[in-house]
Amino acid sequence: MPNYSIPSEVFIRAAEQFPTPFHLYDEAGIRKTARAVRQAFSWCPDYMEYYAVKALPNPQILKILKEEGCGLDCSSETELLLAQRCGFSGEQIMFSANAMPPREFDLARSLGAYVNLDDVSDIDLLKEHGGIPETVCIRYNTGGSFSMHGNQIMGSPGDAKYGWTTDQLVPGLQKLKALGVRRFGIHAFLASNMTDPDYYPALSGILMSTAAELEKSAGLPCAFINLSGGIGIPYRPEVPPVDISYVGNGVRREYEKVFGAPQAGKPGIKTELGRYMTGPHGFVVTHAVHEKNTYKHYIGVDACAVQLIRPAMYGAYHEISVVGKENAPKTHLYDITGCLCENNDKFAIDRMLPEIHVGDLLVIHDAGAHAFAMGYQYNGRLRTAEVLRQEDGTFRLIRRAETPEDYFSTLIW
Amino acid sequence: MPNYSIPSEVFIRAAEQFPTPFHLYDEAGIRKTARAVRQAFSWCPDYMEYYAVKALPNPQILKILKEEGCGLDCSSETELLLAQRCGFSGEQIMFSANAMPPREFDLARSLGAYVNLDDVSDIDLLKEHGGIPETVCIRYNTGGSFSMHGNQIMGSPGDAKYGWTTDQLVPGLQKLKALGVRRFGIHAFLASNMTDPDYYPALSGILMSTAAELEKSAGLPCAFINLSGGIGIPYRPEVPPVDISYVGNGVRREYEKVFGAPQAGKPGIKTELGRYMTGPHGFVVTHAVHEKNTYKHYIGVDACAVQLIRPAMYGAYHEISVVGKENAPKTHLYDITGCLCENNDKFAIDRMLPEIHVGDLLVIHDAGAHAFAMGYQYNGRLRTAEVLRQEDGTFRLIRRAETPEDYFSTLIW
Repeated sequence: MPNYSIPSEVFIRAAEQFPTPFHLYDEAGIRKTARAVRQAFSWCPDYMEYYAVKALPNPQILKILKEEGCGLDCSSETELLLAQRCGFSGEQIMFSANAMPPREFDLARSLGAYVNLDDVSDIDLLKEHGGIPETVCIRYNTGGSFSMHGNQIMGSPGDAKYGWTTDQLVPGLQKLKALGVRRFGIHAFLASNMTDPDYYPALSGILMSTAAELEKSAGLPCAFINLSGGIGIPYRPEVPPVDISYVGNGVRREYEKVFGAPQAGKPGIKTELGRYMTGPHGFVVTHAVHEKNTYKHYIGVDACAVQLIRPAMYGAYHEISVVGKENAPKTHLYDITGCLCENNDKFAIDRMLPEIHVGDLLVIHDAGAHAFAMGYQYNGRLRTAEVLRQEDGTFRLIRRAETPEDYFSTLIW
Repeated sequence: MPNYSIPSEVFIRAAEQFPTPFHLYDEAGIRKTARAVRQAFSWCPDYMEYYAVKALPNPQILKILKEEGCGLDCSSETELLLAQRCGFSGEQIMFSANAMPPREFDLARSLGAYVNLDDVSDIDLLKEHGGIPETVCIRYNTGGSFSMHGNQIMGSPGDAKYGWTTDQLVPGLQKLKALGVRRFGIHAFLASNMTDPDYYPALSGILMSTAAELEKSAGLPCAFINLSGGIGIPYRPEVPPVDISYVGNGVRREYEKVFGAPQAGKPGIKTELGRYMTGPHGFVVTHAVHEKNTYKHYIGVDACAVQLIRPAMYGAYHEISVVGKENAPKTHLYDITGCLCENNDKFAIDRMLPEIHVGDLLVIHDAGAHAFAMGYQYNGRLRTAEVLRQEDGTFRLIRRAETPEDYFSTLIW
């Protein structure tokens, strides 16, 4: 069973107040997760979670995370501007992009952000655009594959476009040192949506060992290790959620092996847990508007891939519940579809669910990350509202729905 | 070799006038294709190509197609509004949607559009929303699979969410007849991007036979057969382009088998050839901005999946040329990447190309359909301009690039 942290009546009340479809986010849940993450890494000097803006780029969510002590991981000029308007500054911002326009370095530097260099060639670009700061982060691509418990557990990082090779690390850091850099950070993309709680610590150990070796071979102290994201959420109800305090302790054990007891002045730890932070605390709230019985049984809902493209793009699973029927037997086999003229616009294929009638309220779970953010306007379909369920239980509109005029706004008639 | 209908210097001049990346469309090419299509079906009474707005929803393109005698296939309220503003009306509009808000029927009917019913349950919805017109189109899903030349050549239409089953056709038409319908149209999604020129005629024959049977069994005359889209374009240079006049003749042969000599008063033919009409006449024009040599060789360009998501979403192939090096030997193996923090943001993987340097101008071909239209704003990346190369060779901006303020416009700070 999915973790129905939000009672049915909340979705019912929200749908009375706002026309479906809309995204609903749970402030209390986001704060609870942010505090658990912070607690899990409280052993570490200079810890900061840099929330990946790309996961849920809404200022009200970012401000909540700011109150909970988070920084932001920004990947573009627009995300930097969003961070700035939300009051983030200096080392509360990590700028991590690849092959982006060089002027974005200027903006990142003017905000005082940490800059994470995706490639050695970015050193010269940064020199020309904003200048070389005292602390620079570099993005490491380990290449090859990791194994744990005797199994290959990561695809093949060497096929990913990100980061520096092993051979580039020392010469690159020496070049940075010659340009005035005094401390380095190191970042690696360790995993994606991994729910094995031993995985993140194991990979963090590899990255920390690399950092310790680089301190010696490049003659530069390590300011921080940026473990990136990758801690997963249980999209499927049978997957247990990751115990973040277990992960934090595991990372601590690896830290102590490499750096000894954590204390001020030793390398800090940074994370970028977009999906883990907000994913489970967002929902697409939608009505069944159509029932179709042809070669299969279809329930058409008023949401579509515009609100959540992950099932269409990745074949991703998202739990779907029928409000008021959470405990009803799952007796019917359905495809749950959106209205796009695009056959992959289906939220579920061959899913057993309680019997659904037109007018039923459905909730698509785990839409608090990479949901609204990836919305397109295909078929002229419009992006809809975002609503925050505040801690006091009231609802607040935090993004209005688009109108046709928004869709037309860049046209030259 | 791809069909470089546009000389290099055109892309160079366009890139001098507009900052990359942008979409460039070739008016002369679009008109030429539209005329060839019209000519190919000129034998048929009451022929009309309904251009699928979803392929390229820009008013200037739609107005060109209107001048060439096309109607529009609209799938949403927004697309209907676009059609209206571009001066299309009445039977120049085909409204074909599934599981959409019922109010969209009201708008379609108020414009006098043909309505294409995706499901039998839409009959009652249409009755309540706009009323039942004299001519109604129904969308047929043949189920099962077709075979041609002894081979299965279509996936499994029965797994597609669209259309009515065979068993639903007669009772549904009888119900429509009782509600005052006097003629029916029949539509089926026959194929997707099929470049075998015998395929479309073969399937059109099946649909025409079905229409003729329905005329008798339901006691309603057939107004038109809507062959939908599906005629492909050669994304890969080794695939020959479809000879549309051959296809038109093939459809004519099937028509004559079923209906005899084409003449006024007999069923018309409609098509919805979005991709075929404009696909080859659009280009993403982009600069190489980054060269990266790690475990592989990457060229980062200033376009990304925002401008063209088909490679990321479907693994689709798009031809890429390097301006000024069209005839240079393809000596280098590259991944051509965009700047998104999303590893699938690659326009080409392991592609042999001429040697590319930062600053080179690249053209991504066949971006005249389902390119801009499917653009999202992931990572806060913005959608860019659309430029029309007019018949006189001058360039006209037909959509401005987005700014961060556009991206922020629905936010509630």
